[in-house]
Amino acid sequence: MTALCASTAAAIVIGNELLSGKIEEKNLLELSRMLRELGIRFVRAVVIADEIAVIRREVEELSRTVDVVFTSGGVGPTHDDVTMEAVAQAFGVDCVVDPVLERLLKQVYGEDLTEAHLRMALVPRGSELVSKTDAHWPATLVRNVFVLPGVPEIFRMKLESVRAHLRGSLPFISQAAFVTLEEVELKERLDAVVTRHPDVEVGSYPKWRDPAYRTKVTFDARDRAAVESALQDFLAQLEPGAVVRVE
Amino acid sequence: MTALCASTAAAIVIGNELLSGKIEEKNLLELSRMLRELGIRFVRAVVIADEIAVIRREVEELSRTVDVVFTSGGVGPTHDDVTMEAVAQAFGVDCVVDPVLERLLKQVYGEDLTEAHLRMALVPRGSELVSKTDAHWPATLVRNVFVLPGVPEIFRMKLESVRAHLRGSLPFISQAAFVTLEEVELKERLDAVVTRHPDVEVGSYPKWRDPAYRTKVTFDARDRAAVESALQDFLAQLEPGAVVRVE
Repeated sequence: MTALCASTAAAIVIGNELLSGKIEEKNLLELSRMLRELGIRFVRAVVIADEIAVIRREVEELSRTVDVVFTSGGVGPTHDDVTMEAVAQAFGVDCVVDPVLERLLKQVYGEDLTEAHLRMALVPRGSELVSKTDAHWPATLVRNVFVLPGVPEIFRMKLESVRAHLRGSLPFISQAAFVTLEEVELKERLDAVVTRHPDVEVGSYPKWRDPAYRTKVTFDARDRAAVESALQDFLAQLEPGAVVRVE
Repeated sequence: MTALCASTAAAIVIGNELLSGKIEEKNLLELSRMLRELGIRFVRAVVIADEIAVIRREVEELSRTVDVVFTSGGVGPTHDDVTMEAVAQAFGVDCVVDPVLERLLKQVYGEDLTEAHLRMALVPRGSELVSKTDAHWPATLVRNVFVLPGVPEIFRMKLESVRAHLRGSLPFISQAAFVTLEEVELKERLDAVVTRHPDVEVGSYPKWRDPAYRTKVTFDARDRAAVESALQDFLAQLEPGAVVRVE
């Protein structure tokens, strides 16, 4: 397949075990970092239960409103693994056995292969498989939706396959200034910087109980010169010694 | 105030820094555990950017569809802190200075108090403040929406105030069996248990690369006898030695 080009992304994280606090969510951070590196804006993530109707509605909405969608979870062989069926329903297709996945499962399980294993070869009709290399276990792409497993180690492995087939816009350039002043002391100066640099996203994050600095101020944009200009404008307004570091 | 009674909950996690992977989300796990302990079903969490229109739309929708909503993030004094305004807009009210918060800020900052500090006393008109004790920094409740800060240490402190004012239904009873069989080997037996115990939520979670067990099977319901019955039904179908432990 050719690479998928995207400038916006969303994620649908599926699993009762996450909402009930039994398991900590671990995939969003990995995904957000990859998207950032690729220059794709991550606009929204939702965490929902293993319910076909709920998953289907999210896929329907997000696949229309962003360029690329990722699902995490609900793709194993048991009764609570309903993501493939939900994605299929969202696109009005049925699930079919993918011959490549079927062959891979036969290679792995040999004579022990059961009907339950073969459930893991079922994908929405019209899906593509993407792999980093021929030897790599593939990830399933349905239209603009990558359907990934929830187990963090496998999610990460498959994300490598995704990365090889995804292109973003110009990556984001980011700078951060760590300062000794509190947010309230910075407010007016920050407001002025935000007004003068409308193309730069300025973030302000208080650090709680850290002796080294009180506030981290971030400057993000796709244009390096714009980021540098906003940063210098901000730094010029600070008292000497107020900046701990810039990175 | 009297306690808020809820059987369903949702969360709106706000912050560009989470979607860009600069900061790891840490509040959902705390929240999910508290809700579970209280017997409140956590049905949905969304992670969105610091944009008034986006936050407002989520608050509008979720405050209508679940009993209690939690927001996390966007409540400091700077330009990117827009949550209070967004929640106010969702309920069609304006923001006003809360006299209790104003007094607390004056106590903390004394002569150094600025207009920027006072921004932190602005709450949607009609908000209530809830505290664990009189000495505890209060959390803001707007209709059925608790508006909490994003900094995990402060989020956790305020969650204690929330807990003191929130009542759930009957708590969930949960049991888990750790077994040496793979999910695919369990599928038919699990399907049978699910069919015979429709009131029990059965979950199945493969463990990746753990020598101790292969699958964790969970049984959840509000009725202890129902959970025990489903667990025993499942255990009765396993080969001797297949169960590592039950907890």
